[in-house]
Amino acid sequence: MEKSELKYVGRSVPRVDGIEKVTGQAKFLGDLVVAGMLHGKILRSSYPHARILSIDTSKAETLPGVAAVLTAADLGDRVPTYNGRPVIAANKVRYVGEPVAAVAATDLATAEEAASLIEIQYEELPPVIGIDAARANGAPLIHEDHSDNICSHERVERGNIEEGLAQSDVVVEDHFTFPMVYHYAMEPHSVIAQWNDEGVTVWSSAQHPFQVRNDIAKIFRIPPSRVRMVISYLGGGYGSKSYTKFEPLVVALARKARAPVRVCNSVSDSMLTVRRHSAQVRVKTGFKQDGTLMAREAEIYLDTGAYDDNGPQVTIRAATRVLGPYRIPNILTNAYSVYTNSGSAGSFRAIGAPQVIFAGESQIDIAAARLGIDPVKLRLKNLLRKDEELRPGLKGIDANLASGLKKLINASQWKTSARKKAAPVGLACAVTNAGATPVSISMARMQSDGVVNILAGSTEMGQGVRTVLAQIAGEELSVPLDQIAILGADTKVTPYDSSTGSSRSTTCMGNAVQAAARDLKKQLIKIAADAFRVAQGQVKLQDGALICGEGRLSFKEALERRFGKGSGGELIGRGETGPEIADNRLPVFWEVGMGMVELAVDQETGQVRIKRLISVADVGKAIHPEGCIGQEEGAAMMGIGHTLFEQMLYDANGQLLNPNLVDYRLPTFDDVPEEFHTVLVENHDGPGPYGVRGMGEGGLLSVAPSATNAFARATGVRIRDLPLTPERVWRALKEPKPESST
Amino acid sequence: MEKSELKYVGRSVPRVDGIEKVTGQAKFLGDLVVAGMLHGKILRSSYPHARILSIDTSKAETLPGVAAVLTAADLGDRVPTYNGRPVIAANKVRYVGEPVAAVAATDLATAEEAASLIEIQYEELPPVIGIDAARANGAPLIHEDHSDNICSHERVERGNIEEGLAQSDVVVEDHFTFPMVYHYAMEPHSVIAQWNDEGVTVWSSAQHPFQVRNDIAKIFRIPPSRVRMVISYLGGGYGSKSYTKFEPLVVALARKARAPVRVCNSVSDSMLTVRRHSAQVRVKTGFKQDGTLMAREAEIYLDTGAYDDNGPQVTIRAATRVLGPYRIPNILTNAYSVYTNSGSAGSFRAIGAPQVIFAGESQIDIAAARLGIDPVKLRLKNLLRKDEELRPGLKGIDANLASGLKKLINASQWKTSARKKAAPVGLACAVTNAGATPVSISMARMQSDGVVNILAGSTEMGQGVRTVLAQIAGEELSVPLDQIAILGADTKVTPYDSSTGSSRSTTCMGNAVQAAARDLKKQLIKIAADAFRVAQGQVKLQDGALICGEGRLSFKEALERRFGKGSGGELIGRGETGPEIADNRLPVFWEVGMGMVELAVDQETGQVRIKRLISVADVGKAIHPEGCIGQEEGAAMMGIGHTLFEQMLYDANGQLLNPNLVDYRLPTFDDVPEEFHTVLVENHDGPGPYGVRGMGEGGLLSVAPSATNAFARATGVRIRDLPLTPERVWRALKEPKPESST
Repeated sequence: MEKSELKYVGRSVPRVDGIEKVTGQAKFLGDLVVAGMLHGKILRSSYPHARILSIDTSKAETLPGVAAVLTAADLGDRVPTYNGRPVIAANKVRYVGEPVAAVAATDLATAEEAASLIEIQYEELPPVIGIDAARANGAPLIHEDHSDNICSHERVERGNIEEGLAQSDVVVEDHFTFPMVYHYAMEPHSVIAQWNDEGVTVWSSAQHPFQVRNDIAKIFRIPPSRVRMVISYLGGGYGSKSYTKFEPLVVALARKARAPVRVCNSVSDSMLTVRRHSAQVRVKTGFKQDGTLMAREAEIYLDTGAYDDNGPQVTIRAATRVLGPYRIPNILTNAYSVYTNSGSAGSFRAIGAPQVIFAGESQIDIAAARLGIDPVKLRLKNLLRKDEELRPGLKGIDANLASGLKKLINASQWKTSARKKAAPVGLACAVTNAGATPVSISMARMQSDGVVNILAGSTEMGQGVRTVLAQIAGEELSVPLDQIAILGADTKVTPYDSSTGSSRSTTCMGNAVQAAARDLKKQLIKIAADAFRVAQGQVKLQDGALICGEGRLSFKEALERRFGKGSGGELIGRGETGPEIADNRLPVFWEVGMGMVELAVDQETGQVRIKRLISVADVGKAIHPEGCIGQEEGAAMMGIGHTLFEQMLYDANGQLLNPNLVDYRLPTFDDVPEEFHTVLVENHDGPGPYGVRGMGEGGLLSVAPSATNAFARATGVRIRDLPLTPERVWRALKEPKPESST
Repeated sequence: MEKSELKYVGRSVPRVDGIEKVTGQAKFLGDLVVAGMLHGKILRSSYPHARILSIDTSKAETLPGVAAVLTAADLGDRVPTYNGRPVIAANKVRYVGEPVAAVAATDLATAEEAASLIEIQYEELPPVIGIDAARANGAPLIHEDHSDNICSHERVERGNIEEGLAQSDVVVEDHFTFPMVYHYAMEPHSVIAQWNDEGVTVWSSAQHPFQVRNDIAKIFRIPPSRVRMVISYLGGGYGSKSYTKFEPLVVALARKARAPVRVCNSVSDSMLTVRRHSAQVRVKTGFKQDGTLMAREAEIYLDTGAYDDNGPQVTIRAATRVLGPYRIPNILTNAYSVYTNSGSAGSFRAIGAPQVIFAGESQIDIAAARLGIDPVKLRLKNLLRKDEELRPGLKGIDANLASGLKKLINASQWKTSARKKAAPVGLACAVTNAGATPVSISMARMQSDGVVNILAGSTEMGQGVRTVLAQIAGEELSVPLDQIAILGADTKVTPYDSSTGSSRSTTCMGNAVQAAARDLKKQLIKIAADAFRVAQGQVKLQDGALICGEGRLSFKEALERRFGKGSGGELIGRGETGPEIADNRLPVFWEVGMGMVELAVDQETGQVRIKRLISVADVGKAIHPEGCIGQEEGAAMMGIGHTLFEQMLYDANGQLLNPNLVDYRLPTFDDVPEEFHTVLVENHDGPGPYGVRGMGEGGLLSVAPSATNAFARATGVRIRDLPLTPERVWRALKEPKPESST
């Protein structure tokens, strides 16, 4: 379809939720009040590793205003778990911040006072802090039913790694580390739960309502259809609200209190609830003298904290994502997630990717220097071509990576920039097998007022999904966007959607919405064709009406023809996305992120700034160009965060030292690059509607390696650890290490 | 389809809402609490007819706890109306009980106190009480913009009435009256309204949520899609909760109060909100000596109260329903609704029918006596045959009326009973053109747990519609009923349904549910046929699974095959009922009611009891036989009410004298006939699923004429006025009138 034919798709229309949000009318979870609602307070462990000897709730229970005090004893002999997390700590605590008890009371102050009256006797156990401690011989076991502290292991193999390395002319091997970082969505996790004979209703700041529904159903042994998840707007997600967090605890508390209960995390609580995995990455890569990549071997350790959460998936993803976007005949990667006594790590925008792409893309520059080949040429030589396989078992690459890299080169004026000696410029390329699951279902419903209701279970968390879905529906039905209402996730109302994550909504839910709109369109056309007495092919849609020659039937009139004048009625279009969207293979799409940065380095103080940042996103087709650019820039700012500033610091006693915005340094508007530019690649080659593919995570990936590559180019000093704090940079400049450790 | 093939349809399964209701878990409107909800009190007129000179709300407004005081001034220069009713009285009141002002306050006591502080100055106008006063020359005008007090007029004509009467050998003419009666649903009308920037949400005890939605949208000039009606269980309807009652007033009050407001009527309030039309009916009928019906002329006056409500429709219906189920070549009927200063009359189970069928069926017996023909034979001779037209413009009769009457004769042992001289037995036949509008839309949604959610906007008001719809869905999908959830009316969730009334739900919504289930079934079969690699015709459904030879795929497995294991997903079936269900003609179906009673008459006191009552309902097919019998018996008990006890009594000053259960005499369990039997006729000739036609109103129709026919047979005295109070009966026995007035 030609761009010029499209009326809504491809245009940066005003956000459909814009006015509601800027006028403060949009409801977030903390704004919701459910009738008869109590307020909950979670009592959290202050020990990183300890046995619970006793819990005395008697004083708390007798405090006036307290409706219920929940402990593991209320969950039966065996406290249920989900994603490895217990609903509430039973017998043992494994991180500072772990929920041990919870109180529901008429107001928050009473709940907090009651929580302070709960007396717990602990027997302290030696804490295991960090990957090295967890891996040490004789390390204390965090989970007694395990033989060590390894949570999960993923191995990826292709060809013969030993032969590949033996056939290489140049082999580089490096160790990298990546810090523990937090998502810092504006809205911390919040949950309201209500339990009655009809079932459970949960209002939650959850990205994946249907998955949380299923977890709650399993934990409490009720049918999923009796669990209703209602999602209002989320104040940001970035993966922090993926999967089930503490919804089951609030459900159990509401069940005991026999009333709805709301629990709103503080920021500090949320930092202990989920975070990104810190990592240690060893990468060894072999090249022919001409730059041909021959082999890559990698060993990755990820600090997954006390419980699994999504750690095993992150590990699986890291083991592939370390390979970069390159053709490598011989591969062996091993990735491990490791239990430690810290808050659990889980999904975070581009799971398992920034840690390993920082390593891999740093090493490409290290190798380029050793080979004496321009790093751009080295990358172009080895970039996967379309349909080539990165590794066995995955769908071939569905994008033209070289065209993206060339666009980056042009947009960043790389040749001019990099020509200067010691120019502080660097770049990096990444491709990730998006974790998107294909399944999304949607409905397009039109009642007699002609308004189209789009039922889509995607969570609007600031990414603009409602606007994009409205554009798709508007385009297909030729309806102005103010005639379209997007009804958000309510598992009782909206059809099934597997998740809002992995950059999948525009592609997978977009496809379902497109199909639902087309199904509705077909029904409208049939009515009009009958009315005009013409073949269906002769009827066109235009501005909310059906047209054939001089004949015109508004959608309202079409409904009247079908059901009778003044008789109401309704047309229902449905649309499904299933595995066939990607020919029954995964990933549904490859997500592409490439970028270039230019640094300003203060050699006296060690302060590094990113002056210029150019990012390339291969979106297939930009449904909402400004939205795409906003996503890419937001991702890049997050990349600047972990590159320059962010790190959660645990002390040896398992206490998080900086659980707040004062001590945990986030990028601010002052850190926005002076030149900040996004290039959208639109080759219409994605699997979604209009050729779209997912985006919004890729912009995060190239920032760190681009920055250290730029730093090395400018100073000759290679930094392999993040973030680039002034102290670390200053020390590196004082005590430089060689470009490669091999 | 053979009965033996059906597993759920045709069986009296336990009601799907039974346990919820008997355990007190079912929520009715008075049980609902919306967050931040205020309590509303309506200040009602104590004058039947008066000009409002001034309203002073200042004292009420300053009472602590009062959020808003609403008067006509808040509704703009021209107070909007709906069905002839103003949202709130403007300038003038027209009945005792008319809303003049309303208060929203933090609690009901404060609202009531504030209402008592509102000062209103009235100028009294002469009240118009009863049909005669309204029709009198020079009667005060209730609506100044009318030239008289006639609200509406309907005329039905066929052949030549004068010739028909002239050709008759015997002509009888009688005057009958029918009392003003109230529905007396257990739950009085109740409404919660909430107005915010997203739109209006109304929880209401409304039978027709989509129609109320549209009225509110019009009145407040907002799109219907911004009005959400949510209906919980209703504690009975019987038409009293048809159409919009005072929802708009509560919406206006909530808008002014900027908070949700609940208004729950008392029983007395509800008796003034809606009731059945009292009637004066003159009928003149001509016969050939052999009993052949030649002509019927009728003049009907209906007391419609202060405002239209559904009075014009009732009038239209009465003008046809007076004809009975007979072949009459020459017809002239005129029906008028008349304004009076009393609470408005509206829909009531079998609208416009009992008043005129009492008249018509009394007169058949009067004529039979005059003709010397057995009244059963006289009826059988003139009963319409299948496909014959009652009158022009309506679909032919779709039932076999004679077979019904014969079943009544057999079941009631009529020949034995009537053989005895002066046996107190009587019977009557009726057929009504059901007012059912055809349009109903439904969805059948199946998620990965295999539970089928049926979305149907029918209101469950005790009639058992959810059970019947579950049976239909279970039958089509071969799913046990506990795997089916019926989601009730929520205009944001459930598809459009024109109404729950006119006995239409089992036929029209049942047809939509059947279609939705079949659409879902088709999708399941396609998946299974692909899995088994067979033609779709080879796959059968059986107990929640798809079967082909040895192959078996549970519905859960079918969803896994479609969407992937553990991938969730959902199948959506949709079903529509449109005008084609009745070949684009009306009525959608004819409703048939016939009955026989045996009386016990105490000639000393005038007390009449119904000892025996046999009722025949031609249901086409009984989906739930016990439910049908319950409906028929319930209708018959209502018939006993207006036959023996019930009458709303207004004094000359327009005050209702008996607005409560003490003074308004309802039938009780003591009044249940000793022998009480229902015969279901199942000829599978209705337009709904499995050949069903609507029922539940017909049982009401034959009681009164059967009773007066029995009384006349036993005593030789004809009573033409209802109810048969001991005083009226005693007086009739003392001062008997002849069988016919002509």
